[in-house]
Amino acid sequence: MRIVLDTLGGDNVPAEIVRGGLMAAKAFDLEILFAGDETLIEPLLPPDPKLSTLHAPQAVTMEDAPAEAVRRKKDSSLVRGIKAVHEGDAQAFVSPANTGAVMAASLFGLGRVQGIERPGIAVVLPTVSGRGVLVLDVGANTDCSAENLFQFAIMGHVYARRVMDVEYPRLALVNIGSEPHKGNDLVKRTRRYLENFPGFVGNIEPNHLFQGEVDVAVCDGFVGNVLLKAVEGGVSITSAVLKSALARNPLSVLLRHALRRFKRELDPSRYGGAPLLGVRGITIVAHGNANAEAIKSAVGVAKHAVECDLVGRIDAQLSGYFKQHNRPAKAHTSTPS
Amino acid sequence: MRIVLDTLGGDNVPAEIVRGGLMAAKAFDLEILFAGDETLIEPLLPPDPKLSTLHAPQAVTMEDAPAEAVRRKKDSSLVRGIKAVHEGDAQAFVSPANTGAVMAASLFGLGRVQGIERPGIAVVLPTVSGRGVLVLDVGANTDCSAENLFQFAIMGHVYARRVMDVEYPRLALVNIGSEPHKGNDLVKRTRRYLENFPGFVGNIEPNHLFQGEVDVAVCDGFVGNVLLKAVEGGVSITSAVLKSALARNPLSVLLRHALRRFKRELDPSRYGGAPLLGVRGITIVAHGNANAEAIKSAVGVAKHAVECDLVGRIDAQLSGYFKQHNRPAKAHTSTPS
Repeated sequence: MRIVLDTLGGDNVPAEIVRGGLMAAKAFDLEILFAGDETLIEPLLPPDPKLSTLHAPQAVTMEDAPAEAVRRKKDSSLVRGIKAVHEGDAQAFVSPANTGAVMAASLFGLGRVQGIERPGIAVVLPTVSGRGVLVLDVGANTDCSAENLFQFAIMGHVYARRVMDVEYPRLALVNIGSEPHKGNDLVKRTRRYLENFPGFVGNIEPNHLFQGEVDVAVCDGFVGNVLLKAVEGGVSITSAVLKSALARNPLSVLLRHALRRFKRELDPSRYGGAPLLGVRGITIVAHGNANAEAIKSAVGVAKHAVECDLVGRIDAQLSGYFKQHNRPAKAHTSTPS
Repeated sequence: MRIVLDTLGGDNVPAEIVRGGLMAAKAFDLEILFAGDETLIEPLLPPDPKLSTLHAPQAVTMEDAPAEAVRRKKDSSLVRGIKAVHEGDAQAFVSPANTGAVMAASLFGLGRVQGIERPGIAVVLPTVSGRGVLVLDVGANTDCSAENLFQFAIMGHVYARRVMDVEYPRLALVNIGSEPHKGNDLVKRTRRYLENFPGFVGNIEPNHLFQGEVDVAVCDGFVGNVLLKAVEGGVSITSAVLKSALARNPLSVLLRHALRRFKRELDPSRYGGAPLLGVRGITIVAHGNANAEAIKSAVGVAKHAVECDLVGRIDAQLSGYFKQHNRPAKAHTSTPS
């Protein structure tokens, strides 16, 4: 298996990303194709036939408008990296670049799975039960329709079953109350689509997400991103308050240690990789701040998604759905299996 | 000053609420009018001319549809308590009942400040700077227009100046990125209204809320409620992880102590009171789980709002605005002062 790693996206270009790629190659026994400026990458690579470079020296930055960057920067590590996946030179693409640009490049370069209008970005948040909860969309789509959320539900269901190994995923709508009538217009309309969805358990309030009551939580990308960042805020302020309360205590070292481990686990957008679901290929978005450890973990997510044939499974699920309903994924019921 | 306290709303009816009212009467030297079932309340009250009852034995529950409850339950502590404020028997109303019902009763019973289409619920979150940040709306309105958000900004600005004593409030839009082009449709449209708003500093991401960079953060009620609950989730999971990591450690006593103090400060919706801004009277929403301490604190918020003439200030601000622009609050610029 070969995975393309974009060494020109995010804040830590390219040395830290290359280091993460080397760690991943070793840990997961993979081939890594390093996309970027080969004059910068090659000095960092040990001689190893599993490690190669794809010369694509243009960088897509946080300031670039996504669609325009993809159209104009043909020699970017992003565009050429995705192309390598499309042409079968590699099986997955991992990038810590501007999320909007990664999404645009994936859409243009790989296309969508039939029946998916908008791909979604998913993250797994830890739960007290240890199994984790998949939340999507967390930022790819700022304005969504009920159909979009329904499609996120189908993709999340497949991901939970195939990648997270949850036999019967419990799925919920992110909402501001547990009662069925609660929510904004979008959520209420989406609820009608989900009533007969297998494993649908109703609403989940964000403060209950960590309790392990559900396996998949669906929301629009604006709400999902606010949710992730608010959780991050809650974690940070709690940590800061406790650190300062215990600052003069010699045992606070233990606290700091526990916190560090926990934070790594908590924030996969920062410490790992988030799959972009719904494109015809495997794209994993890493955080712009990702360090080598996080890049390694994102490559691990990519590898696992390839092994599970994630794209094929989503495609099969949707095709089965179309055959059954003889129409696009806009019906009021569905039966993913 | 006399404040009505709804003893029949929320989970802790009526004894715990009455206890909170007694604490507030003593702490703030106030008259309290206890609305509810007088046969239950009177045995709990010491003989004191400052303490009186308003017999209104019907309870509005979490299951009641707000508008219908207000229309049908004329003898509820909610409807009659609001009426007492409307008729000048009291200066403010405090209730831990169903938020939707409190809002409906306040709208019907008190009316709106001219120029405000939808009232909003505001909470003050703590910041590292200690001044706190006012966030609104946190749940009164699940679907908002840009005009609604603009009106929240005006009300938040007034609240920060008059009640929080911030001379030049810095105001931001809750968003998923700091760049001006980021956000969903609603946020982008709202941004055009706010460009020339005094103290407008752009977007704020939820993970930066606690850093004290802004004094007022504006969002729609669905997003605001998700934000609050996600912060709560982040705080809880961090506390739980750290407690368990340090369970067998003497440090954990200190930790528990620090956490308890911090949580009280952190979550005003649970531990204090949140003003409903935009109605023609002062209504403070307490959390359904509010204990006596939280009820006392909510009454304190009410008292302070009365002293600051909150409603008069919002009204004056909006009237000034109308005179200047000769139209309702729908313009693209504004100059609150």
